[in-house]
Amino acid sequence: MKETQLEKSPLAPSQFPSIPPIGGVQFSVASSGIRYVDRNDIMLAELCSGTAIAGVFTKSVTRSASVLDCQEKIGLKYTQGAAIIVNSGNANAFTGKQGTLAVKSITKEVANHLSLPKNRIFSSSTGVIGEQLPYGKITKCLGGLKASLDTGGIAQAAEAIMTTDTYPKGSYSIIETERGSVTIAGIAKGSGMISPNMATMLVYLFTDAKIEQSALQTVLKEINETTFNAITVDSDTSTSDTVLLAATGTSKIQIKAECHTFRQGLQKVMLDLAHQVVCDGEGASKFIEISVHGAMDSEGAKTHAMAIANSPLVKTAIAGSDPNWGRIVMAIGKSGATADRDQLKIWFGDILVASDGQVAPNYREEDGAKYMQKNKINITVDLGIGAARATVWTCDLTHQYININADYRS
Amino acid sequence: MKETQLEKSPLAPSQFPSIPPIGGVQFSVASSGIRYVDRNDIMLAELCSGTAIAGVFTKSVTRSASVLDCQEKIGLKYTQGAAIIVNSGNANAFTGKQGTLAVKSITKEVANHLSLPKNRIFSSSTGVIGEQLPYGKITKCLGGLKASLDTGGIAQAAEAIMTTDTYPKGSYSIIETERGSVTIAGIAKGSGMISPNMATMLVYLFTDAKIEQSALQTVLKEINETTFNAITVDSDTSTSDTVLLAATGTSKIQIKAECHTFRQGLQKVMLDLAHQVVCDGEGASKFIEISVHGAMDSEGAKTHAMAIANSPLVKTAIAGSDPNWGRIVMAIGKSGATADRDQLKIWFGDILVASDGQVAPNYREEDGAKYMQKNKINITVDLGIGAARATVWTCDLTHQYININADYRS
Repeated sequence: MKETQLEKSPLAPSQFPSIPPIGGVQFSVASSGIRYVDRNDIMLAELCSGTAIAGVFTKSVTRSASVLDCQEKIGLKYTQGAAIIVNSGNANAFTGKQGTLAVKSITKEVANHLSLPKNRIFSSSTGVIGEQLPYGKITKCLGGLKASLDTGGIAQAAEAIMTTDTYPKGSYSIIETERGSVTIAGIAKGSGMISPNMATMLVYLFTDAKIEQSALQTVLKEINETTFNAITVDSDTSTSDTVLLAATGTSKIQIKAECHTFRQGLQKVMLDLAHQVVCDGEGASKFIEISVHGAMDSEGAKTHAMAIANSPLVKTAIAGSDPNWGRIVMAIGKSGATADRDQLKIWFGDILVASDGQVAPNYREEDGAKYMQKNKINITVDLGIGAARATVWTCDLTHQYININADYRS
Repeated sequence: MKETQLEKSPLAPSQFPSIPPIGGVQFSVASSGIRYVDRNDIMLAELCSGTAIAGVFTKSVTRSASVLDCQEKIGLKYTQGAAIIVNSGNANAFTGKQGTLAVKSITKEVANHLSLPKNRIFSSSTGVIGEQLPYGKITKCLGGLKASLDTGGIAQAAEAIMTTDTYPKGSYSIIETERGSVTIAGIAKGSGMISPNMATMLVYLFTDAKIEQSALQTVLKEINETTFNAITVDSDTSTSDTVLLAATGTSKIQIKAECHTFRQGLQKVMLDLAHQVVCDGEGASKFIEISVHGAMDSEGAKTHAMAIANSPLVKTAIAGSDPNWGRIVMAIGKSGATADRDQLKIWFGDILVASDGQVAPNYREEDGAKYMQKNKINITVDLGIGAARATVWTCDLTHQYININADYRS
């Protein structure tokens, strides 16, 4: 398949991190042949009894059968273990009643194989929309998947869930509490159809912390807003976006929702994964951070930041290393959020580009042009009308994006 | 300049129409050398006494000095003539107090040359944002512009206002009333930074109808919603969008706001110009019409239609002639307007592609692929939840868009 032959993104990290095992979590992978050949396309994660599971999902009104199924199951009270099963190559989205049947069949079969309640089986599918999922190809792998479950398999799991991704994405953090250390780890996939509500992604986070489901859900939802919901590649939102966070409790260290250390560790892992998704944005050659401060409220700050991040004219200018700050003014103007043209300040890195409703007096085009040669670009906007702020991340819009998307299915 | 060397769009009309003179309107053009060399970059239109002028403008909060100036003058009561002066190459946007001074100077000098009140001079500037407009280059052309005013100069005017446009845009209609005929004509420029509120464009419409300013404003605003505010190239909104409609009254035929024949004629001219702007969309190789019906309300229908029209994934799929209807489902899902996944129907031309929450039973991929080879694509969506509808127009997203925009200023 074309999408597996893409060259690795120039923004890719040098290697997949050495993620330590997470107590209570085992992984296995398999090759089902749904779409890809010669690679794994199924991952199974088994979670020990007592695991709490939180989740956030796409807000798309055309969301997939597996997303709807996960949403029904999140928050149900069970003491037994759980499992997550994911396939790549087919999204099982917009597949009608047959799509729902596929999810029911897969989760029921996983439950049977692992002797778990079927309400504790969470499934995801990622890939092409609108084609029926040949779920028999998944269920026939379950015997092998069960037999090969292993605490060390997270790197292979990260590879199995890739679609147009050019590298597997993983991250971890070990936090120290008064009563000992807790591990937080995660894997993600996603490189196109990336925009908030949520970024087109599948993300699976694991920790051995002991934490109540409702507290876990609160923390995940809050941190999601400034991490996965603060990135965009192309403004398009997937039908399948899913972030699941499983807390197995094997560390025996009880964590409350307000625990700052835990939040910091989780934020670090989620932000790292979110940035890795942007760095693998289809065709990305530059990583762009956009910070808007001085806003009336944080919603307005984020609206402006996203208008800049999603503007095709801003993204193509950056692809061409053009310090075209006029397009940033344009994007702020069209965003719909409050701004005052004459109070705006715009910086490229540390270079003040515009203020007082015009180009900054000391700004020199050659400084801007030199800055734009970098592959990590910081754009800062001070709206000058309040104290709220927001930061979002995106990538540039290049020929390679068109190459990838003009014939994804061909 | 690079932008003047672009090849003519493959969707361009075969030729500029033979627009008849409009009573009470004279045109002239000049070459000021603001940015372009060896071409005209200024147009002047003089309008006879008694002309009523209506206007609609960009809603950008960072709109340009000339837009702000026009907005102040629209609706003021004068019996004298009027004039429109436009330059290309420099947008005089985000140019602070000096930008405002430039507008005041230009309009004052035009008023002096033509012996008109300065509140009757409307100006526009289009081109690069953020650079100071050397307005002396414009005012020094005024003597020559006045001397060469001519009723037949509309085609040259259409050429003078071009920026990245690959062809001049003009249209006209002659309507028959019980008391005689009325001419409606117009010119437009615009090819990038095109999105509603309004499409990044300058549009000048002229008619010899006799019509009150308030009635003219009402009609313009209403028809604008289904024409220029129903097109998008790249979702980006300009700081300078302007549509002016001048009714000179020389036909002596009095038209009221509710006159169906006049509305029809104006709609025809405005829609033709709007389509010409889309057909000159930066890098466009296909013209796309998106009709959404069966919506709860027309706002919802337009939100869905625009979500499809602005989706980079839909636009790149069409560029690649890929009948990737799953991306249309995705765009409807993310739009934020009401929809029911299982009530949706999607057609490519007359081909029913999806219904009942899945691919249509008789749909064959080869039929969709064959249809997508066309250079005019119709996408129809029936939401199945109401009776409201909307139609919008856009173009595909190709490598040429990136070529043009990654180095517009270089």
